[in-house]
Amino acid sequence: MNTSFSAYGCRTGLIAPGDDIVDRIIRSAPEEIRDGDIITIAESALATAEGRVIRLADVTPSAEALRYGERYQMDPRVAEVVISESDEIVGGIPGYLLCIRNGTLLPNAGVDGSNAPDGTIIPLPADADASARRIRQEIRDRTGREVAVLIIDSRTHAMRLGVSGVTIGCSGMEAVTDCRGRRDLFGRSLEVTRRAVGDCIASAAELLMGEADECIPVVIIRGLRELVGEGEGIETIAPDECLFMGAMRKG
Amino acid sequence: MNTSFSAYGCRTGLIAPGDDIVDRIIRSAPEEIRDGDIITIAESALATAEGRVIRLADVTPSAEALRYGERYQMDPRVAEVVISESDEIVGGIPGYLLCIRNGTLLPNAGVDGSNAPDGTIIPLPADADASARRIRQEIRDRTGREVAVLIIDSRTHAMRLGVSGVTIGCSGMEAVTDCRGRRDLFGRSLEVTRRAVGDCIASAAELLMGEADECIPVVIIRGLRELVGEGEGIETIAPDECLFMGAMRKG
Repeated sequence: MNTSFSAYGCRTGLIAPGDDIVDRIIRSAPEEIRDGDIITIAESALATAEGRVIRLADVTPSAEALRYGERYQMDPRVAEVVISESDEIVGGIPGYLLCIRNGTLLPNAGVDGSNAPDGTIIPLPADADASARRIRQEIRDRTGREVAVLIIDSRTHAMRLGVSGVTIGCSGMEAVTDCRGRRDLFGRSLEVTRRAVGDCIASAAELLMGEADECIPVVIIRGLRELVGEGEGIETIAPDECLFMGAMRKG
Repeated sequence: MNTSFSAYGCRTGLIAPGDDIVDRIIRSAPEEIRDGDIITIAESALATAEGRVIRLADVTPSAEALRYGERYQMDPRVAEVVISESDEIVGGIPGYLLCIRNGTLLPNAGVDGSNAPDGTIIPLPADADASARRIRQEIRDRTGREVAVLIIDSRTHAMRLGVSGVTIGCSGMEAVTDCRGRRDLFGRSLEVTRRAVGDCIASAAELLMGEADECIPVVIIRGLRELVGEGEGIETIAPDECLFMGAMRKG
């Protein structure tokens, strides 16, 4: 287990649709990329580079989107995109629908208007795990370095004020590590503990990315080399095993 | 805005009731503490030092605790302590009660048996903000340095597998920063974004603390000096403003 790590922000400049994000990462890294680095990329910058920008003028809301728009005081065209990006709509409050997408719970299915050009919105990357895998492979091809790549987002959590980081795409490490079978300070086996190291790294990176005009969509985490390996994707939890869903739904 | 920071773990050795935690921090810090450092402390180590260890043999469960114990397959003595540590019990799943304490939602009110001596459990520190304030003052008295102190915990979030960090006590910085009025990449004012920087820092620290026998209950974050100032406590969200609570309860 390491006892220190560092995080470095990369000032890539504004990312536009079609930009070569790997080139931007390599050129803006404050130091050369090394084996064992964990490279975190903001989902909004990735989705933009991948051309996932949707013009609201091109969206025709369905009857369902019109109903949600009225009920939750949302632009029905935004509601339409949110519905199409969701596996399930669980509920809502004014301005937001609470959605399930890829086994996680999130507001508006990650569809975001901030940091998007006027009159447009940006959904999440279509397949963040595939994007992470591709970027990791391209970094290996161009630099010869073995890294992990995390695609990250900033989200709110139940009864916490403010956003923190979560990982939505992963290649080259286990985003959730399993401590079952390890021992606690008193030598007993730990029964249930898993660690969301991907989310912890995402939150560390968020401290440098900020949420506004910083233009730091990429942060390199150096010093956690023991986490870097061959893992792909992010293990999720079943709703009936989740304390929050289980307890709230049963009421 | 800074573009890099570092995190350093402190190997304090095992903490026992009555230990002087400030002395342990100062002596185990890998480098001298500096102005602007953010010192994160695991709540379990702090609660232990503060003598918050409860012997289960001393606990007599109430009728309510017996009911919860049966319904959720818990030791009724643990349920009794959880009830006494909670402002409200919202629900449960086998092994866990979902509780509200100090305006946040958490399993078993933070009462934990791992890393506690056999036959005992450790509740959260009685007043984590007051502990943070006291420790910050003592560090100032003994080293002359102006730091921020965060008391942190590891928790699960709704529909996320694995624990990440949250801040439960704060002195010397704003745990939640307010970006309202700032501008996004395209120069528009951001409407709602607040950042849970305390939780992000807690998650960064968790990467070094681990969850088992690492004996690193203190992590120093260096390089985020602009966050360090005069803030105290942690701003919470009202249940009816929380998307998760609002959407699930109306569900």
